[in-house]
Amino acid sequence: MFKTAELGQKIPKDEYHELLPELRARLVQTQYHMRAADFSAIIIIAGTDSVGRHDIVTTLFEWMDPRYLETRSFGDPTDEERDRPLFWRYWRVLPAHGRTAVFYGSWVRRPLMDRLDDLIDDDQLDAAIRRINIFERLLAHDRTILLKFWLHLPARQLRKRLKSLDKDPDAASKISDHDRTIVDDYSRAQQIFTRFVRKTSIPEAPWIIVESADHRYRNLAIGRTILDACTKGLEAAEARARRKREEGDKPPTVTPQPANSNGEVRSVLDTLDLTKTIEREAYSEQLEKHQNKLFALQTRAFHEGQTSVLVFEGWDAAGKGGVIRRMIRGMDPRDYRIVPVSKPTEEEFAHHYLWRFWRELPRKGHVRIFDRSWYGRVLVERIEGLATEEQWRRAYSEINDFEEELVEHGILLLKFWMHIDKDEQLRRFKAREAIPFKKHKIGEEDYRNREKWDAYEAAVNEMVQRTSTEYAPWYLIEGNDKRYARVKVIKTFVERLEQRLSK
Amino acid sequence: MFKTAELGQKIPKDEYHELLPELRARLVQTQYHMRAADFSAIIIIAGTDSVGRHDIVTTLFEWMDPRYLETRSFGDPTDEERDRPLFWRYWRVLPAHGRTAVFYGSWVRRPLMDRLDDLIDDDQLDAAIRRINIFERLLAHDRTILLKFWLHLPARQLRKRLKSLDKDPDAASKISDHDRTIVDDYSRAQQIFTRFVRKTSIPEAPWIIVESADHRYRNLAIGRTILDACTKGLEAAEARARRKREEGDKPPTVTPQPANSNGEVRSVLDTLDLTKTIEREAYSEQLEKHQNKLFALQTRAFHEGQTSVLVFEGWDAAGKGGVIRRMIRGMDPRDYRIVPVSKPTEEEFAHHYLWRFWRELPRKGHVRIFDRSWYGRVLVERIEGLATEEQWRRAYSEINDFEEELVEHGILLLKFWMHIDKDEQLRRFKAREAIPFKKHKIGEEDYRNREKWDAYEAAVNEMVQRTSTEYAPWYLIEGNDKRYARVKVIKTFVERLEQRLSK
Repeated sequence: MFKTAELGQKIPKDEYHELLPELRARLVQTQYHMRAADFSAIIIIAGTDSVGRHDIVTTLFEWMDPRYLETRSFGDPTDEERDRPLFWRYWRVLPAHGRTAVFYGSWVRRPLMDRLDDLIDDDQLDAAIRRINIFERLLAHDRTILLKFWLHLPARQLRKRLKSLDKDPDAASKISDHDRTIVDDYSRAQQIFTRFVRKTSIPEAPWIIVESADHRYRNLAIGRTILDACTKGLEAAEARARRKREEGDKPPTVTPQPANSNGEVRSVLDTLDLTKTIEREAYSEQLEKHQNKLFALQTRAFHEGQTSVLVFEGWDAAGKGGVIRRMIRGMDPRDYRIVPVSKPTEEEFAHHYLWRFWRELPRKGHVRIFDRSWYGRVLVERIEGLATEEQWRRAYSEINDFEEELVEHGILLLKFWMHIDKDEQLRRFKAREAIPFKKHKIGEEDYRNREKWDAYEAAVNEMVQRTSTEYAPWYLIEGNDKRYARVKVIKTFVERLEQRLSK
Repeated sequence: MFKTAELGQKIPKDEYHELLPELRARLVQTQYHMRAADFSAIIIIAGTDSVGRHDIVTTLFEWMDPRYLETRSFGDPTDEERDRPLFWRYWRVLPAHGRTAVFYGSWVRRPLMDRLDDLIDDDQLDAAIRRINIFERLLAHDRTILLKFWLHLPARQLRKRLKSLDKDPDAASKISDHDRTIVDDYSRAQQIFTRFVRKTSIPEAPWIIVESADHRYRNLAIGRTILDACTKGLEAAEARARRKREEGDKPPTVTPQPANSNGEVRSVLDTLDLTKTIEREAYSEQLEKHQNKLFALQTRAFHEGQTSVLVFEGWDAAGKGGVIRRMIRGMDPRDYRIVPVSKPTEEEFAHHYLWRFWRELPRKGHVRIFDRSWYGRVLVERIEGLATEEQWRRAYSEINDFEEELVEHGILLLKFWMHIDKDEQLRRFKAREAIPFKKHKIGEEDYRNREKWDAYEAAVNEMVQRTSTEYAPWYLIEGNDKRYARVKVIKTFVERLEQRLSK
C-alpha cells in the first residue's frame, strides 16, 4: 500500500518557486468561490511523518487565506469531552457549508495510536474503524469533501530523521513516543497502518497517500489535490443548482407502506386504546408519588453520572409540553435542560441535520429533554419535501447509528410518541383559541398540518418500525386523556431509571 | 421494530378478489417492460412465518409470468459450494439485468439460524452482517433492486399455528426445528431478529416488515410493494437513458495523482530496475529447478486442499503468456485452469463486473490462473471511459473486499504486474509483426493503447497503492528480460506456496 510513496519523488527548489505563485493564487480564488457554496471540506493529515504533518499545516496557512481556513486540533479529551460519546468532540467543531477545516490529530489518530501501544487489539481497532466508516460516510453524504492525506516516510528516512533530531536538544519536542515505537518495530507499525488505511478507505473518502520525504514535493502534491477536489466540488455544486432550477422542487413522495394496502390506512397508532383514562384523584396521587420517586432517583443518577436523554414527538396539541412541565417538577433545575426544537437556524442549516442535536448532548448525570427532535427528518421534513427521499430514507440508519453511540456511551435514551386522535386534536385547537394566553399557540399552519394527517401517520408508522431498536424502543403514549398520558410517561422514566441505577 | 406488524391487518375475501386482477395485470406488464431494462430485482423472503414464506413464493408464481421470475433456493451448502468462499453460491446465481429472482433461504438465513442455535455468538453474527452489508451495498450500486420482506407473526399466532400443525400428521414437514426454537424462547428470538433486521437495514436495501397473520393482507402488501419498486426502477432507468442521450458519454477523467505533481510522471513502476537479466544457462537451470519444486508442492497442495488464485496483469506484450506457459509446465494439467480475460460477453455484461470472476473460482486444491482480471475495472475501463469515475473509484474497495473473502477462505492469492518499458514494448511489437504465427497478436489497437501509456501508468500506480493489501500485495515484475521475469514469478509462487503449506 505504501510502496507507491517510496519513489524518491523530488522537486528542485527553483522549479518549486516557479510553480507556487499560480497554485497559491488559484487556491485562494477557490476559497472565495467556496464561501457561498453548499458544501464543506475537511482536510485530515495523518501518517508516519510527524514533522511533516506539522509543516504542511503551517504551509497551507501561508498559502491560503486564513480567514477561510480553520484548524481543529485535538489532544487528550477534556473532561467536557469525556462526558460525551467519543465523536462529540468532532461533531461540535464540524465546519459549516462553505468552510474548510484542517483536522489535526483527528478521529483517526487515537485508535491508531492505541493499537500501536497495544492498548487495544485488532478486534477493538475494527470496532473503532466501523464507527469511523459510519461517521465519514455520513459526512460525505452531507456534501463534505473529505481529503485524507497520509504522509508516508520510509523506514530508513524515519530512522535518519530521528537520529538527527536526537542530536539537537531544541528538537526534542518534535519527536513523540509514537515516532520511536514506529521506528523500533517498523514492520509491525507498517502492518497496522496498512490494515487501517485499507479499511478506512471508503469510496466516499479514500486515503491519499503522499510521499513525504521531500517537503517541496509533498507540499505541491497536497496543494494540488486540495485545489483539484475543491474545484470539482464547485462544479458539482453548480450542476446541482442548475438541476434544481430546471427540475424545480420535486413533489414529496409518500411511499405506500404495506400497512396501507387495503386502502384503509392502518398504523401502529391504531393499536393504542385512546379510551384509557385515569380519575382526577388517582391522578394527583400517582403523579405526586412518581414525581417524588423521580426526584430521589435523579439525585442519585446525578451523583452516579447516569445521563438521560428524553425525546418527545407527537401530534400538534398532543400534550408534549404538559407532560414535560409535570416531569420537571420531579427534578432539580440544575440537573435538566429542555430543548425546544423548531426550524433550524441558518448556522444549523449549514450543517448536517444531526449537528444541532450532537451539540446539545448533556454532561454526565444530566437530563436533556428534547421537545421535538432529530426525528423531524423523517416526519415533517419528509412530508413537506424538505428532505429528498434519498435523504430521509438514509436518515433511519443514521439515526439508529447516532442513538447506538449514545446508548453505548451509557446514556439512558427514552423516546415517547404522544398520540391523540384527530377529533381530540380539533377539540384542543378550538379550546386553545378560546383561551387568550394560549391563542398564539394555534394558527393556520396547524390546520394545514391536519390535512396531511394520513401522510404523517404513515410516516410515524415507518419511523416506529425502523427506529424501534433493542437499545432504544419507542414508547407510544395514549394521550386523549392528558392525565393518563402524564402518569404513564413519568412512570416509564422512573422505572427505566430505577432499573438502570440498580445495575 | 416488529410492533408495526402486529396490527391485526386483514383484507376480506371479496375485497381481495376484487383488487387482484388489476394488480396481477400490472405486475405482468411490468415484467415485460423490465426484460430490456438495465437493472435487476432480487426478492428475499425471510421472517418468523415459515409457512407464509412458502405460500407467498407460490402466490407470486401464480400471479406473475413464471418465464421472467426465477427462484433460487438454498439448503445446506453442497461440496462444490463448501469449497468456495461463502458468497460464491449466491454470486453464481445472481439474476442478470432485466431479470427478477426470488431468493429463498438466502444469505440472511444461515447466520440468523446459527445464532438462534447458539452455534455463533453476537460478535460472529456481526462479522456475518458486515459481509452481508458489503454484498448488498455492492448489488444495490450495480442497480439491483433488493426487496427484502420480513414476514412477521406475533408470538401468540406462531404458537397457535404450531399447535394446529402438530395435530396434523401430514403437516409435520411444514414445521422446522427453528420454528420450535423461536416459539420456545420467543423474546430471545425477537431480540436476535431485531438486532439483525436493524443492522442489515441499509439505506440501499432496508427490510420491509410485513404483517403475516392474514395471508390476503400479506400477499397484497408484498405484491404492491414489488409493483411499486419495479415501476420506480423503470422510471429511473428511463431517466438514466435520457440523461445519457442528452449529455453523451462523458470524457474519461484521469485524476492527477500526487505522484505526478511536478509535471514529470513518476509511478511505482519507475522504481523497478529493468536492466536486471539472467544468463541463458542459469535461466534454464533455475527454471527447471523451480518447475520441479512447484510440481512437488502443487501435488501436495492438491491433496491438502490448498487453493491458489494467480492474477496476471501487465502491459501489452509484457510476457504474461510466456510466464504462464512456463509455469504450467510445473503442474499437473488436472490441477490448474487458465482463464484468459477479454471483453465481457453479453451475459457477463448484464451482471456485476465481478460476477464472471466469482464464477471462475476453483475448487479446493486447484490453481486458477487469470490472464488479465478484475483489475480491468480500474485499468482499461477507467482509461477508456467504460466505467464512470464513481464506478472505478468504488471498485478499489469492492476488489479489496472480494480478495479479502478469498484469502479468508484460505485461498493463496498472488497478483503479478508484468512491467516493461515503452521502448521494449515497441521492439516486441515489431518483432511480433515479423513472425507469421505471432502477427495476429498485434494490431492497430495495440498502437493506440501505447499513446495512453502515461494515463495507464498513473492508473497502475493508483491500483498498486489502493489494492496492495496486507493479505494480497502486488508483485511488480521487471520484465524487460523475459527470462528474468519468468524465473522471478515462478520462484515467488513456489516460495509463497511452500510457506503456506508449512503452516
